[in-house]
Amino acid sequence: MKHAFRTLIQSSILPLVTLCASQLAQAQEFTKAELEMVEKVREHAHNSNLSWQLVESLTTEVGPRLPGTENDKMAVAWAKQKFQQLGFDKVWLEPSKFPEWRRYHESGFILTPSKQPLHLTALGNSISTPKKGLTGEVVLFETFDELKAAPAGSLEGKIAFINYRMNRDIDGNGYGPAVKARNKGAVEAAKKGAIAYMMRSVSTSHHRFAHTGGSHYTKGITKIPATAVANPDADQLARLVALGNPVRVELNIQTEDLGEGTSYNVIGEITGTKYPEQYVLLGSHLDSWDLGTGALDDGAGVALTMAAAKHIADHTQPERSIRVVLFAAEELGLWGAKAYFKHYEKRLGNIVAAAESDFGADVVYAFESNVNAASLPVVRAIAEQLKPLGVKYIRKNEARGGPDLIPLRQTTSAPIFDLHQVGTDYFDYHHTADDTLDKVDPEKLKQNTAAYAVFALMAANAETKMAGK
Amino acid sequence: MKHAFRTLIQSSILPLVTLCASQLAQAQEFTKAELEMVEKVREHAHNSNLSWQLVESLTTEVGPRLPGTENDKMAVAWAKQKFQQLGFDKVWLEPSKFPEWRRYHESGFILTPSKQPLHLTALGNSISTPKKGLTGEVVLFETFDELKAAPAGSLEGKIAFINYRMNRDIDGNGYGPAVKARNKGAVEAAKKGAIAYMMRSVSTSHHRFAHTGGSHYTKGITKIPATAVANPDADQLARLVALGNPVRVELNIQTEDLGEGTSYNVIGEITGTKYPEQYVLLGSHLDSWDLGTGALDDGAGVALTMAAAKHIADHTQPERSIRVVLFAAEELGLWGAKAYFKHYEKRLGNIVAAAESDFGADVVYAFESNVNAASLPVVRAIAEQLKPLGVKYIRKNEARGGPDLIPLRQTTSAPIFDLHQVGTDYFDYHHTADDTLDKVDPEKLKQNTAAYAVFALMAANAETKMAGK
Repeated sequence: MKHAFRTLIQSSILPLVTLCASQLAQAQEFTKAELEMVEKVREHAHNSNLSWQLVESLTTEVGPRLPGTENDKMAVAWAKQKFQQLGFDKVWLEPSKFPEWRRYHESGFILTPSKQPLHLTALGNSISTPKKGLTGEVVLFETFDELKAAPAGSLEGKIAFINYRMNRDIDGNGYGPAVKARNKGAVEAAKKGAIAYMMRSVSTSHHRFAHTGGSHYTKGITKIPATAVANPDADQLARLVALGNPVRVELNIQTEDLGEGTSYNVIGEITGTKYPEQYVLLGSHLDSWDLGTGALDDGAGVALTMAAAKHIADHTQPERSIRVVLFAAEELGLWGAKAYFKHYEKRLGNIVAAAESDFGADVVYAFESNVNAASLPVVRAIAEQLKPLGVKYIRKNEARGGPDLIPLRQTTSAPIFDLHQVGTDYFDYHHTADDTLDKVDPEKLKQNTAAYAVFALMAANAETKMAGK
Repeated sequence: MKHAFRTLIQSSILPLVTLCASQLAQAQEFTKAELEMVEKVREHAHNSNLSWQLVESLTTEVGPRLPGTENDKMAVAWAKQKFQQLGFDKVWLEPSKFPEWRRYHESGFILTPSKQPLHLTALGNSISTPKKGLTGEVVLFETFDELKAAPAGSLEGKIAFINYRMNRDIDGNGYGPAVKARNKGAVEAAKKGAIAYMMRSVSTSHHRFAHTGGSHYTKGITKIPATAVANPDADQLARLVALGNPVRVELNIQTEDLGEGTSYNVIGEITGTKYPEQYVLLGSHLDSWDLGTGALDDGAGVALTMAAAKHIADHTQPERSIRVVLFAAEELGLWGAKAYFKHYEKRLGNIVAAAESDFGADVVYAFESNVNAASLPVVRAIAEQLKPLGVKYIRKNEARGGPDLIPLRQTTSAPIFDLHQVGTDYFDYHHTADDTLDKVDPEKLKQNTAAYAVFALMAANAETKMAGK
């Protein structure tokens, strides 16, 4: 049927000269009926509040979802039940191990020249301070490299503090340079003899929220408590240090390393009619940090990928499968993703397109692929159908996918896509207590859902099976 | 000299027909040299960062200033020293009693359907929960009146929760209707048998900060713990209640009533040359809540009133005195102001103009008086000199002054002024941990300082001694 239609077009019922490249691509890859279906699904998704209902339910009824907690188990049960209620053809769990960690208490004070509370949070994986806390003098560094360059032993008994300011940008490109200090700051501070580590939050916010996130120790280097302070508190510390007198602070962090835990990737699939083993992978992660309710990170992603597939299934059964994977324990180190791509290591060629939504809930403004040349006509056709949603096409063909696709990229050259979201405000909320449902704009969430639905349906139905380069 | 100049004008060196009313007022009340001095002081104040330096110093080196705390004592010492360093002619302290109260711990959790932290704060004056906290089912009311209308005994063992949403407005007029629930909510809840009280914060913020503030018990009514939750948490509670299942929460508030304490109004005066006993009163309050560093409430007011007087003194010695009064213990019930106006009860007629800056640090957009008819020419003249700062003149003549002028208004009909500030964002920060220095815009603070300097200098030098109506 599709071939017949394509032949019909090529035999010039439509004058070929009037077809632009993207229209040609569409005509080559999709039947007219298929394109009409794409439009129908797009409009439906763009007018549905299903994704809102899902993110509202997850963040309200479950709330924070730190891997291994009771809430994480509830989230797994929630996701499985929602997939089933939404009528996905297959729903299953796959286990994932991860290093389990808990935050029990965190407080801090500036002690000199006056006592003032510090708004701070333990970085993920941080050890505890002694039960009664610890006190020390703050030594300020502007950058991670400045701390690295400090002489050995120079921080003996001190508390190292990096005051690096993250840049605000639409694509969040300030995150990479800032996050170095989170990942390894405590290790570098310990090397110089520091008894604890503080950093300005990896955040663009001027509100008094501290930003948590993964941090890592190095074997052979003393573990010291690792914390981030809210940006107004970082400013306060910097002003006090600038006055020239010693600034002493008190930190009390109580956490626990619980060893290896188990959580679950929750997977729902709409099974393809023609090539069921081939599939479009729509990713997001089900876990969240414990401070907020994980609405932007990544409840929105969970909701919109589930809803996108459901909107497709409500209208048509795609030729290839659409698999929504809600990864486990992303925040603690992509553990669910590592388990998933390890488990399917020999069958990664079945993935015809992969994209992850894990950058909040602002609008998708651009679409980009990372595919071989033969797949580009499909990409152009998809881009054409995303245009009505205000999504532009970035031709660089260098998409990187979300964080949970890193293990995929490291294993094979998969066909990976970015549905780039506006991220200008994302790091105002990311990994803070302020990541709550009210930060999700229902209208923008609809646009995201529609974009994912268009992308998934077309990747599943394209004449060409897409592949990486 | 002044009279000579006025006569000169009236004898038509300037053609009277071309003078507008406000120019006439200026000419009647001020010499040309005086008006030139006003311009000079205005420009100087508008270009000086003295007020910024003061608010930075107070909020950084002292920080939070809850009455009676070590920080409050530091603030009193800070203010006295600053007045002296700035060269005020007289600097003195006046004691004020107040009911001393401390906050030691506050935490809360939603318990069902899942455990989630609540961002909440004890209202000022709240009693403690039992040491291990208390738990109860939430009963939601939309308004204070709805709670008042609940049948007696209907909240036995329950936790009352008022979810009233404050309106955002330039003049903060949403505060009054919202604050009823803070003042007396716990009393009404206790009357119905509730074991604790929660309210949506009196705040326009969508960030996760709880808003504290004064609350009051009534003799004969059981005291129950009184708290406010951050607005996103109020939304979360409302969504959970709407699901129809019982919502249980846990609250743990540890506070202490320390009985009567003493703090100090700190007063600095620039002494008038001609009528030293008459004075312009520039008010603000030195204390703050303990959660933030009291930058907007009221560090900015302290800084800009001190700076305004200093800018005047740098250029001229006014005919009447300018007295800057940094009131004590405003947040706990205007205690410093009550003490001040009681102390000067018999000499309130010496106040020729009074204004308080206690509404943050956004620009002054309007000027309004509350004076007798004879004083209106002075008011018009001042308004004319405020125009270059973008300040309009509100002719209603119904100014109310800041909160610390309430005891003055209640005692006598004083000449009171409002330098109305834009308050659109004020209740995003007011009484929260997020009231920190970065919320003060240095440029807007300069405009405020200049407006206060113009007002104070002109009120001090006007030919007519202003009075209330």
